Amino acid sequence: MESQRERAERFRSLHQRERLFVLPNAWDVPSGRVFEDLGFPAVATSSAGVMVSLGYPDGERIPLPEYVAAVRRIASRLSVPLSADIVAGFGPTPQEVARTVRMVVEAGAVGVNLEDQDPSTDQLLPLAGQMEKIREIRRLGESLGVPLVVNARTDALSRGEGAPAERFRDAVRRCRAFRDAGADCVYPMRLVERNDIATFIREVPGPLNVMIRPGLPPLDELDRLGVRRVSFGPAASYATMGLLRRAGTEILHERSFRSLVDGAITFDELNRLAGPAPSPSSPRPGDP
Amino acid sequence: MESQRERAERFRSLHQRERLFVLPNAWDVPSGRVFEDLGFPAVATSSAGVMVSLGYPDGERIPLPEYVAAVRRIASRLSVPLSADIVAGFGPTPQEVARTVRMVVEAGAVGVNLEDQDPSTDQLLPLAGQMEKIREIRRLGESLGVPLVVNARTDALSRGEGAPAERFRDAVRRCRAFRDAGADCVYPMRLVERNDIATFIREVPGPLNVMIRPGLPPLDELDRLGVRRVSFGPAASYATMGLLRRAGTEILHERSFRSLVDGAITFDELNRLAGPAPSPSSPRPGDP
Repeated sequence: MESQRERAERFRSLHQRERLFVLPNAWDVPSGRVFEDLGFPAVATSSAGVMVSLGYPDGERIPLPEYVAAVRRIASRLSVPLSADIVAGFGPTPQEVARTVRMVVEAGAVGVNLEDQDPSTDQLLPLAGQMEKIREIRRLGESLGVPLVVNARTDALSRGEGAPAERFRDAVRRCRAFRDAGADCVYPMRLVERNDIATFIREVPGPLNVMIRPGLPPLDELDRLGVRRVSFGPAASYATMGLLRRAGTEILHERSFRSLVDGAITFDELNRLAGPAPSPSSPRPGDP
Repeated sequence: MESQRERAERFRSLHQRERLFVLPNAWDVPSGRVFEDLGFPAVATSSAGVMVSLGYPDGERIPLPEYVAAVRRIASRLSVPLSADIVAGFGPTPQEVARTVRMVVEAGAVGVNLEDQDPSTDQLLPLAGQMEKIREIRRLGESLGVPLVVNARTDALSRGEGAPAERFRDAVRRCRAFRDAGADCVYPMRLVERNDIATFIREVPGPLNVMIRPGLPPLDELDRLGVRRVSFGPAASYATMGLLRRAGTEILHERSFRSLVDGAITFDELNRLAGPAPSPSSPRPGDP
């Protein structure tokens, strides 16, 4: 069986190729398993997806052990690498952030996303502190023998001060500093425009992560621009809730359940998405 | 605030009208909340949906407290009545089944689904024992002051002995007995054909539940036939996993993320589906 170190290296190597990979974000076991089955080389958690599924808004309102338990459930059913979104680290100090990272690594994750905004105030956090957190995560990964992939996110484009050009410069400055501190990949939230992406790649060395959202250039163009990693963010949660809304509206107002059965998977297929069964016997086939 | 007794009565009254209602089955907080927002008068859990989402196949392999915690999460974020699928009751005796029902009622449920097949063998359980379990659940509801809605399911159509006509007679016999024992609604799994549904309604007094699946007659026809309750079963899970499979395939093979963004809801909309926030401040708007 592959060790966690090997799994981390496998994840890391995806960032070091000369082409883009797409990282789907899941919120529970079957959403992760369905992506693995399709052939995605790795899966990440969407913090918003996981937290909302458990009844908490995005941020750090969820009790950390409840969030880590969800990471563990997903990681335990996957054989591809899993990266965990840890928001701003569930604590202001590098030591608290490292404690959170240790928990998600013990839960099976081999990568983390770290934001630079305070989830309770939405203010940008000081850059020096973020760099220290990244260094602390690196040290932890070395001490655990798991070469964690650190994806450092900045919200400077939306949360920063001043005009757009000034915020752009701040996002570049922050991401360069994240790289200097040891981040494997940088992630400027709201970097969407083709030209902005091209400029960002020229200005900041190393792998860039962008998030799928309306207006993002096509994947092939992102690949040509040099984007290395495209994550779903909570897009899969947005899409599935959109489907439920359409299906429910159709039932209530058109008295049709077409959207609920067209293109659906079967009971046996759903059951298989529970992943490696916790007991040796196989899932019962047949009816729900 | 509405008491649990009042909520149970509200749910019960939906079964006593001269028309059909649709009961959507959810597997987590936002899938339940989206149905409530659309105007469905009640929500149920899908055992398969909930269990698979947590990494367990349908049945009773999930530790009961983990299942009950999921019921509690969903119930705590809804204001419409919630009915809990308890499979075969997580135990062979009426006392064990009543203990399970007590747990889901304490978690906020006001109705239960009880099956008559042994989840470890898929064999039909003896009818007398099922009747005793239903009586025990009724007694429990009275002692708790919560007039629980008991939906008694039979799997005789697929798990019974003999030719289809014989299994149909057994399903009728079992559902009549369930009614005699105090079930509010009966639910013959795999009752799909128009004529079979019409015959069943003639033969068994009281509300009938059927499940949405391909081949089921349209809702208006079910209404005319006299069906009182149409549940999703795990159909919403099947549909959303189908969507993720399409969206993922499109990304990997057509390099397009159209299915992920078309018809999707927004971050703020997803955040609101976390339901009544656990702290007084509102969810942070903006980015995931």
